[in-house]
Amino acid sequence: MERGNIPRKIKGFRDIDADQMELRQRIIKAASKVYRSYGFEHWDTPVLEYADALGKYMPDEDTVDKGVYSFRNPEEEPILNPDGNELRDAEGKAFMENAPLAMRYDLTAPLARVYAERLWLDVKRRQVAQGRPPLFRRFQYGPVFRYEIKLLPGRFREFWQLDFDTVGTDDVAADAEACMILSDALEAIGLKRGTYVVRVNNRKVLKGFLASVGIVSEEQEGAVLRVIDKLDKIGWDDMRLELGPGRTDSSGAAVPGLNLSDDISQKIIDFLKLATGASNRTEVLERLTSAAGDNEMAQEGLAELRKMDGLWNKLGFDEERILLDPTLMRGMAYYTGPVFEAESLLTYKDEKGKERKVGSICGGGRYDGLVEKLLGMKVPATGASIGVDRLAELLRMVNPGEVKAEGPVFIAYFDDELQGEYYRIARELRQAGIDAEVYCGAYKGFRKMKKQMSYADDKNCPIVILLGGDEAAKGVVSIKNLKLGKELSATITDKQEWISRVQREVPLKELVDFVKEQLGHAG
Amino acid sequence: MERGNIPRKIKGFRDIDADQMELRQRIIKAASKVYRSYGFEHWDTPVLEYADALGKYMPDEDTVDKGVYSFRNPEEEPILNPDGNELRDAEGKAFMENAPLAMRYDLTAPLARVYAERLWLDVKRRQVAQGRPPLFRRFQYGPVFRYEIKLLPGRFREFWQLDFDTVGTDDVAADAEACMILSDALEAIGLKRGTYVVRVNNRKVLKGFLASVGIVSEEQEGAVLRVIDKLDKIGWDDMRLELGPGRTDSSGAAVPGLNLSDDISQKIIDFLKLATGASNRTEVLERLTSAAGDNEMAQEGLAELRKMDGLWNKLGFDEERILLDPTLMRGMAYYTGPVFEAESLLTYKDEKGKERKVGSICGGGRYDGLVEKLLGMKVPATGASIGVDRLAELLRMVNPGEVKAEGPVFIAYFDDELQGEYYRIARELRQAGIDAEVYCGAYKGFRKMKKQMSYADDKNCPIVILLGGDEAAKGVVSIKNLKLGKELSATITDKQEWISRVQREVPLKELVDFVKEQLGHAG
Repeated sequence: MERGNIPRKIKGFRDIDADQMELRQRIIKAASKVYRSYGFEHWDTPVLEYADALGKYMPDEDTVDKGVYSFRNPEEEPILNPDGNELRDAEGKAFMENAPLAMRYDLTAPLARVYAERLWLDVKRRQVAQGRPPLFRRFQYGPVFRYEIKLLPGRFREFWQLDFDTVGTDDVAADAEACMILSDALEAIGLKRGTYVVRVNNRKVLKGFLASVGIVSEEQEGAVLRVIDKLDKIGWDDMRLELGPGRTDSSGAAVPGLNLSDDISQKIIDFLKLATGASNRTEVLERLTSAAGDNEMAQEGLAELRKMDGLWNKLGFDEERILLDPTLMRGMAYYTGPVFEAESLLTYKDEKGKERKVGSICGGGRYDGLVEKLLGMKVPATGASIGVDRLAELLRMVNPGEVKAEGPVFIAYFDDELQGEYYRIARELRQAGIDAEVYCGAYKGFRKMKKQMSYADDKNCPIVILLGGDEAAKGVVSIKNLKLGKELSATITDKQEWISRVQREVPLKELVDFVKEQLGHAG
Repeated sequence: MERGNIPRKIKGFRDIDADQMELRQRIIKAASKVYRSYGFEHWDTPVLEYADALGKYMPDEDTVDKGVYSFRNPEEEPILNPDGNELRDAEGKAFMENAPLAMRYDLTAPLARVYAERLWLDVKRRQVAQGRPPLFRRFQYGPVFRYEIKLLPGRFREFWQLDFDTVGTDDVAADAEACMILSDALEAIGLKRGTYVVRVNNRKVLKGFLASVGIVSEEQEGAVLRVIDKLDKIGWDDMRLELGPGRTDSSGAAVPGLNLSDDISQKIIDFLKLATGASNRTEVLERLTSAAGDNEMAQEGLAELRKMDGLWNKLGFDEERILLDPTLMRGMAYYTGPVFEAESLLTYKDEKGKERKVGSICGGGRYDGLVEKLLGMKVPATGASIGVDRLAELLRMVNPGEVKAEGPVFIAYFDDELQGEYYRIARELRQAGIDAEVYCGAYKGFRKMKKQMSYADDKNCPIVILLGGDEAAKGVVSIKNLKLGKELSATITDKQEWISRVQREVPLKELVDFVKEQLGHAG
């Protein structure tokens, strides 16, 4: 029995090639610029953290063991007590352990750790008063890791997020701003207005309303919210059944219900449908306000939404960009107030030709409790995250032609005697700001022209420079415009005409100017 | 006994704040642009890989277990045989395992995996002939991870590398180019010519020479190379002792010697010193050529260096940028031919005021064997890596003033009634291309001006906009130029004069133009 050493990636992981990278970088560059323009600083944190510092739960899970890549630190360290000192036995010997580490599963938990770490000693020494945490606004991007046991098609276990967060304010102006930033960022990335919308809700509103109809225990409330969160997938009728007696799903399995009375289920559904047919956000707010009655929490949430709406109106963010949606839940257990989610309104055809929605592409919300566990002090915070890879996939589906990274000007290799000259030409082009590559693949001294051309083609090189002994003797080079060639090959069938349009002999001295002009014309 | 949950990073890991990020991004942007200008494509690979696919050794270690963060895949998978099929028992049941995974310790091993993975099936089917592997040139940057047991000051267990590699050519033009790229990249990053030098050697030369003096076994050769590799640290005299009888180090510990005869040690030392006093690379090459005699491997290495020298001369890379150094070894066991290393010639003062060299900042070389283990075919390759964090540290030491990230224009918060106006002004500035932030820290409704100013100051905001009820009634804003203020505070002691120079009341309508002008003046 022999074991093979097969070159391969771990299942669920992938390489990013030049074309995919082009898209990723376009997204990161455009969105980062928007984040920065709102005053967010660029930070980075380690990929690896103490599992304890990341918190005891993943966004949608109750345990850090589920869904996280975790292992023991190879380094043995003393266990610390709540004051940060070493725990010791009766003889003063420190207890040691190899602490559990985890690869970060998002960028929010590390942010909470950064903030808590910087403030922990000050809070412990009572130098920071409860309710007065300092303001911190940062953006961060990079890979996050989730060990998803069932890997759905198109999903990966390593993927990139691009987050911005405001920590240290309870002013929902920061939430209103977050929604505007998402809108600005998506448009900067290239999404046309009208092809996406940012949906907004406030968890306090629905929680307050549920309390007003008698759903007060945390357990029952959580169960109802989880059912509502599935609305997108199951629809109104099945949601009604799950709130009430339960149902049988398409596989024949029983889905237990919450056994709410028909009356209460109906009230909840009516409330969730309040935005239907409303002509603008103000009308939605009016309907919700009267439906929420005198429940304090709901009215607090509505006042927050009204403040946010006021800022959006003042700054011209109308309903084409930001909508109120009373059904929006967002799964994450840690959200405490406003939640928001950007949805692509575009559709695409899947492999079977079926029309599909792209759906949610980014989102966020207010999480006033996340830092508390680490710091022992409540720190209000809000922020959002763009799923970079998901958005890249969307851009690829929407602009399938536009996803090639452009290669350098390509200098073919004919003649060993001219190698120095090839490199000299490349350098001259670079000094004029033009990317240029001399073909350097060596096949035991022989370099097939066909291989070279297919290399240049694969790399999407716009122009090829050909210089053999004959040309060198005449002081000229041949320049072939591959990019133009591809365009013309659609309309020109005569080979001679095509060559005459695409290839030109140029004096060596005019090479750089000619290439510049060609790139200008072609690009 | 109570365990604490203290917010902290793992030992050896660190956060990158906005100022450090500014440096990191400057390095990545400048070097990437140079890499791309030579035709390298930007790729990325996962942080996590099968330990087997990364190869059995770290650059300087014999085992993957040493120095690597490694753990078992939580997913159970079938074990594969050398053909890539599942290994099965007599009853046809697949053997399963939780395969060892490792966090990448560099970017070269994943490159070898990428290249081998793409070609593996073709090679297996004999569609790619031995000696004709396709050309692949990519650059990549990102974090790599090493569990260094003894953590030296200033070293980290997660750090960033920025690599470029050419896979699939035995033409040392690619090596010559790599040295020029390092030089171009360092200058693009901001190192002045003359403050760094790229040193180059060829392992074949010294190996051939050692063979010619009778050191032929791989074991003995390896031992000699390891001693020579320490020359930088131990100096000529201790090196001579380690080649010969051995020595006692400063702690009194015995360092065993290789017991070479005085005659052979002397020959080796003479050979290593051949570059001393030579006026240029050509002279070094001449001396080495005559010293190497008729050893075939040494002469092959020298021919390669001559070819590289020819390209450098043709393209104007003189000895101020690239030097030949017969003592350069570079530790990595996998190098097979030319090796190169860029060294900063700058010095800095350590905490004790002692003058210290910065030393090696990046390097690389030819590694013709790295892909072979995974692909079963020899694939020549060469490339280099910039240590991003180390270079950032260098830039910080050299330009201590220049390392602050610039913050946004800061809009102070005075009056709840004016909040919408603050956000409107910020948006107007952004639309003119100016980053702007409205202070949103909330202290239960009260926002201390002193806190706001210290926030703006910490964030290195160039300008503060002040708008209270009085200004609003008059249709003006007060604009304070913090950046100019800092500059002037060095020369102006009169507070009134300072304020009159630094702060100005401006009509609201002229705000954007005025800020633009101020940023122009100050920046």
